[in-house]
Amino acid sequence: MMFTAEITVMPLKGLLDPQGKAVMGGLNNLGINTVNDVRIGKHIQLRIEAQSKEEADVIANDAAKKLLANPVMEQFYININ
Amino acid sequence: MMFTAEITVMPLKGLLDPQGKAVMGGLNNLGINTVNDVRIGKHIQLRIEAQSKEEADVIANDAAKKLLANPVMEQFYININ
Repeated sequence: MMFTAEITVMPLKGLLDPQGKAVMGGLNNLGINTVNDVRIGKHIQLRIEAQSKEEADVIANDAAKKLLANPVMEQFYININ
Repeated sequence: MMFTAEITVMPLKGLLDPQGKAVMGGLNNLGINTVNDVRIGKHIQLRIEAQSKEEADVIANDAAKKLLANPVMEQFYININ
């Protein structure tokens, strides 16, 4: 069966996010002043061939840990559909 | 009230995603061969000060259309919490 894994990789809470700060500046320049904080990460969609949702989850976790996320600076969440 | 808008920006379906193709090659090199397709986009969290969920949604849509997503190459989804 085919599953779609939606992996969100975000910078860890305690870390500065300079890209987010730059985007917040850009929003303010456009007149959008009600945004207090911006954080920017990655969203990765994997199409996985697996026997079950659990197996797809294991493969997506493996991919995230080995390649997609850097655990020193990032955390990730996985959703399997 | 404070709301969190989760904005996912992905390359349009019909478009090539060279970053995704490169990551798929990397996964194959690591021995993960059950992944058939990879697409990579951005995930943006906005902290928004607004009177209601609807107002926060309008602000997030405005931000996405004006700055965060390029409608020629990208589509976006918004979730307000």
